[in-house]
Amino acid sequence: MKIENYVRDIQGFPKEGILFKDITPLLNDVEARQECLSILLNSLKDQKIDKVVGAESRGFFFGMLLAQELNAGFIPVRKPNKLPYETISASYELEYGFDSLEMHTDAIKAGDRVLIHDDVLATGGTAGAVCELVEKLGGTIVQCNFLMELTFLNGRDKIKEYPIFAAISY
Amino acid sequence: MKIENYVRDIQGFPKEGILFKDITPLLNDVEARQECLSILLNSLKDQKIDKVVGAESRGFFFGMLLAQELNAGFIPVRKPNKLPYETISASYELEYGFDSLEMHTDAIKAGDRVLIHDDVLATGGTAGAVCELVEKLGGTIVQCNFLMELTFLNGRDKIKEYPIFAAISY
Repeated sequence: MKIENYVRDIQGFPKEGILFKDITPLLNDVEARQECLSILLNSLKDQKIDKVVGAESRGFFFGMLLAQELNAGFIPVRKPNKLPYETISASYELEYGFDSLEMHTDAIKAGDRVLIHDDVLATGGTAGAVCELVEKLGGTIVQCNFLMELTFLNGRDKIKEYPIFAAISY
Repeated sequence: MKIENYVRDIQGFPKEGILFKDITPLLNDVEARQECLSILLNSLKDQKIDKVVGAESRGFFFGMLLAQELNAGFIPVRKPNKLPYETISASYELEYGFDSLEMHTDAIKAGDRVLIHDDVLATGGTAGAVCELVEKLGGTIVQCNFLMELTFLNGRDKIKEYPIFAAISY
């Protein structure tokens, strides 16, 4: 079982020149999904996790499975104006301009042991902003994990103070 | 354990006059989340499910947990231009105008037994469009299930040919 075989290359999505990694075959195959979940869990070596934070919206998929398996709360990080309660916000740089992400202020208590999950570590902008949100609320980041890392984009540099794990590296 | 206690009322979100039901406390509490998942699973009475379809993006949360527990594939239904592979589309009416949803053409095989999940059954627009997508690909809809039903909006009328279950009714 190679989970790489369940990630589909899509040329030119969402725009020309981009090779998009489509994880929907991985979500839709029970065995490949379980294998991927096991790989992510094994990387944690039974460390205690209180909360799993997943980034909108592809981080919600395995983020929820991780939270369930780890008996941890799940916290969605979302784009602006999607979360209804009181939020904190962190911004990050895009190719042109800035974007930001929000988290509910009551999502994490100081001292909570937090696992951050997203589907892809690319330039690290999203991951860096999520780490900033968790730190603002006093959480301890145990690991940032990803289904995939696009190593040529050097996203690790933005979150180098934390343990990083990716199930697949390109 | 009353799961209703983990759904938070937010007045005036996303706009004045709307009472929003915030499910983030339910995601963040391990016991309440498990209780809610058990209620949804029990409603299926051990019927075989091949695929769980979750609607963007709050349907991804419990949709993934249901797929995992049922040993079923998970299929995201998304807003236009979010899914990278070949898609089919269904549109539905809003208060002013139309919106549409997409599903990958290879997500469901004819004869697949499908569970549809979303967080809220409100006017039924989303649910109706998701059912249309599943039918287009030849899937058999076993149940449409929801965390919550806002009964005063009569969303059931749009999907009355299918079994419907909601864990909480308002």
